[in-house]
Amino acid sequence: MRIVVDAMGTDTRPDAEIEGAIHAARQFKDTIILVGQEKILGKALKQYDIGTLPIEIVHAEQEILMTDKPAIASKEKKNSSIHVGLQLVKDGYGDAFVTAGNTGAAHAIAMLYTLKRISGVKRPALSAIFPINRKPVIFLDVGANTDSKPDWMAQYAIMGHLYAQHSLKLSSPRVGLLSNGEEQGKGNQLTLETDALLRTLPLRYIGNVEPVDIMYGNVDVVVSDGFTGNILLKTFEASVHYLTKILREELKSNPINSLGALLATPAFKSTRKRMDTDEVGGAPLLGVNGVVIIAHGGSNARAITSAINQARMAVNGNVIDYIKESFEPVPTLD
Amino acid sequence: MRIVVDAMGTDTRPDAEIEGAIHAARQFKDTIILVGQEKILGKALKQYDIGTLPIEIVHAEQEILMTDKPAIASKEKKNSSIHVGLQLVKDGYGDAFVTAGNTGAAHAIAMLYTLKRISGVKRPALSAIFPINRKPVIFLDVGANTDSKPDWMAQYAIMGHLYAQHSLKLSSPRVGLLSNGEEQGKGNQLTLETDALLRTLPLRYIGNVEPVDIMYGNVDVVVSDGFTGNILLKTFEASVHYLTKILREELKSNPINSLGALLATPAFKSTRKRMDTDEVGGAPLLGVNGVVIIAHGGSNARAITSAINQARMAVNGNVIDYIKESFEPVPTLD
Repeated sequence: MRIVVDAMGTDTRPDAEIEGAIHAARQFKDTIILVGQEKILGKALKQYDIGTLPIEIVHAEQEILMTDKPAIASKEKKNSSIHVGLQLVKDGYGDAFVTAGNTGAAHAIAMLYTLKRISGVKRPALSAIFPINRKPVIFLDVGANTDSKPDWMAQYAIMGHLYAQHSLKLSSPRVGLLSNGEEQGKGNQLTLETDALLRTLPLRYIGNVEPVDIMYGNVDVVVSDGFTGNILLKTFEASVHYLTKILREELKSNPINSLGALLATPAFKSTRKRMDTDEVGGAPLLGVNGVVIIAHGGSNARAITSAINQARMAVNGNVIDYIKESFEPVPTLD
Repeated sequence: MRIVVDAMGTDTRPDAEIEGAIHAARQFKDTIILVGQEKILGKALKQYDIGTLPIEIVHAEQEILMTDKPAIASKEKKNSSIHVGLQLVKDGYGDAFVTAGNTGAAHAIAMLYTLKRISGVKRPALSAIFPINRKPVIFLDVGANTDSKPDWMAQYAIMGHLYAQHSLKLSSPRVGLLSNGEEQGKGNQLTLETDALLRTLPLRYIGNVEPVDIMYGNVDVVVSDGFTGNILLKTFEASVHYLTKILREELKSNPINSLGALLATPAFKSTRKRMDTDEVGGAPLLGVNGVVIIAHGGSNARAITSAINQARMAVNGNVIDYIKESFEPVPTLD
């Protein structure tokens, strides 16, 4: 397998990407194609003893910054690492694309300029994967489409279901609709109409779910409009960060607390590991015609390795083929 | 001042309410009027040495359960503690109403049957108050109206501003609009239209805010539609609960961790105290013609005392008068 990795995405680019790629090449024996400024990457790569590891470099002159407007960058930076990388997958030179760069730009370039939408898919969706009790929960859309429609959301459910089943290897995944109450009939106009649609689909649909159901692992695939999904994801991240910050302040507040904290260090470490999205690495942009894994801009090398592994799992699970098949028009008998 | 307290709201009713009322009567010297089954309350109250504390009981035959449908309960249980309590405020027998009971029912009974809307208010909003770094942040709507409109949300902003200024005593409160990005232009159709409206109002409007801005106290009043607001609130609660649960599991995993945890107990306690919504107690239902403070169903006595204090602050700050005034039609010169 050949995984294309945007080397210019993380806050510590290209180091996190290069180290992550080396680990991945070593661990998975797959070929990693790093995309970015050839000189910079070549020089950086020389600092590591990579021996005969299957790592290639493909040159891309431009870089899309996190501050670039997606609509403009996707149009004007045709030689960006994201554009070049996605084109490699489109051309069949690579099997999947991983980026920790500008999410909006990756979405726009994949959808409009390179991979394009899978036929029948109305809107691709961005997902997030929560590692809950060491089991993944896939949540979508987290921001591709701020204004969603019931039929788009029904498609998110189908794509999430297929990803959960074939890539995350969850058998018979439970699909839930994020709402402000568990009872049927709770929700806004959008979720009420989506709920009615979801009930007609051949999914294991369990109805409305609330945020606590995600945290308790009561559901495997959670469907939301992109605005609310984005707020949920950011609230989760901000809450964990805030609680950790306060706890750290309090633990430093006197010597006995500090000693306690020191003794409890392993527990804090394993807690962090269990909350850690680096273990997941990234999550798919679903609905475009190829495997695209989006990682966090703050990803470290380990997160990049995990994101590459997400890409491998999606390729091995033939997720794109399953999505294509499920959106194929039913043949009619003439 | 006379505060009416629904004695039949919490999970541990009427104990939490009675204890909370006793603390409040002792601490604030205000009269507390407990509403519920007279016999039960009288018997329960006898177990405490209340001496000459100004605590009254008003009988209400019925009780609205958390599982009751608000629309039905508000119509059919006219002798519920919520209905009787709100009517006491409506009749001027009490200055404010505090309940930890069925929020939807309290909302419906206040709006449709007793206090009614303040003239000019399109929709009352439910708020939540986050204690961030010991400073309150008021967030609304958290669920009164799952489908909101821009002009309703502009009114939430005005009411939140007035509550922050006159009850929470924040001078020149910063008002923000919850969105999926800080930059102007980020958002869904609803927030984009609301943003345009908010820019025309005489508020200290700081534009879009994200969940992290709430946690960092970068904003004092946060406006949201009721659906998204409800999801944010529940995600915050679920995240804190989830992180705490995992940390507890890990701390119990071996003796050294456990010893560390024991030594660090004061730090955990003060962390919990700083995250603790019991310190706030409750938050107002804004837009109805009287002070209504909604507390969590899981409130303990301390939370009830705090909720009573919220009510006192709102009454002392003349919040209702300020809201009335700001929605008064501007007199025209004929």
